[in-house]
Amino acid sequence: MQIAILLYDRFTVLDAIGPYETLGRLPGAETVFVGERTGIHRSDLGSAGLVVDAALDEVTAPDILVVPGGPGQRALMEDGPLREWIRAVDAGTSWTTSVCTGSLILAAAGLLKGRRATSHWLALDQLPVFGAEPTGERVVFDGKYVTAAGVSSGIDMGLALAGRIAGDEVAQTIQLGIEYDPQPPYDAGAPDKAPTEITATMREYGRAVLAGEA
Amino acid sequence: MQIAILLYDRFTVLDAIGPYETLGRLPGAETVFVGERTGIHRSDLGSAGLVVDAALDEVTAPDILVVPGGPGQRALMEDGPLREWIRAVDAGTSWTTSVCTGSLILAAAGLLKGRRATSHWLALDQLPVFGAEPTGERVVFDGKYVTAAGVSSGIDMGLALAGRIAGDEVAQTIQLGIEYDPQPPYDAGAPDKAPTEITATMREYGRAVLAGEA
Repeated sequence: MQIAILLYDRFTVLDAIGPYETLGRLPGAETVFVGERTGIHRSDLGSAGLVVDAALDEVTAPDILVVPGGPGQRALMEDGPLREWIRAVDAGTSWTTSVCTGSLILAAAGLLKGRRATSHWLALDQLPVFGAEPTGERVVFDGKYVTAAGVSSGIDMGLALAGRIAGDEVAQTIQLGIEYDPQPPYDAGAPDKAPTEITATMREYGRAVLAGEA
Repeated sequence: MQIAILLYDRFTVLDAIGPYETLGRLPGAETVFVGERTGIHRSDLGSAGLVVDAALDEVTAPDILVVPGGPGQRALMEDGPLREWIRAVDAGTSWTTSVCTGSLILAAAGLLKGRRATSHWLALDQLPVFGAEPTGERVVFDGKYVTAAGVSSGIDMGLALAGRIAGDEVAQTIQLGIEYDPQPPYDAGAPDKAPTEITATMREYGRAVLAGEA
């Protein structure tokens, strides 16, 4: 079972690593990091570099596609080789997945038209532009398309999908192995849970980023 | 504020990336991945490669040290340049931290003697060998030493430490930014929560790995 994780410059590392540490631990899984160019790709913060080992034309039939998000997503919304590759491999995947704004890349490629989906909470309102229906759920299954909310949600997505693929016991074994028994010190991980002023400030910041002002 | 994340071959990626995506988003943070050699380091699963940009002698005064865990930890339990570096930089850190079996590296360097600490649940019983007192907590603060439990716990540790360093509002802003509102599909992330037979099987596997049989 080949899992292809797509990387690009200015991706968010945890978006990619949540699914990697869960789906990548399934029995028989073989994970490959793929991109338009091979070599080191820098994260949104600039300080982490993750390696792409396979060019697009070397990965033609992954069973699972994982598309992470991050600020670099905005440079991938035009048609081109990457989008063609996504459409081509999607035709053969068992599961096509995304974390965070990775869903906007899938949506722009036309794969989420008429489907329920999610994204980072700051990007949810962009899904309808591409004909997708945003939901407030953290992990959304619609047929073989699985989209997750912001950044850290890829862990929950990976475990939920691991359960669908290999059964509850295997998924629980993976969860115990990565000791995923979350105990956040605050209950501020969603816009309706964080203090109002924090959500408002971040929403304004997100608007400015999208408008190219920040 | 410099954050040094120590990498080595066969580390667990999420151990490093949980703190990276939380502490690394603190205002003024500058994160550097450091190791005995620069260049690509492969994870325990082999398929992820993360880049070390700075050799040990290039990072002499980090404010925060982060030591991740992973199977490669077992090769680092002898005295040598790495341990000397850990002791040297620890003398100047504001916070010395670990995730998962990274605490065994700190403990073997003599830094956790007489201190409360934690580690991956399968490794907790090794802490007393080095004079540390294991606890059942997910994140343990003892003076400037902060140790976290297995793999995914580095996210909780990073947020808790972010709060100590920069205050609750900053930590909550980071939490909202990475949408850390965990919703695991199972409640199996700790040995006393997972189904008994899954915990027993993994405990036996862990014993075999530590004995060099697996």
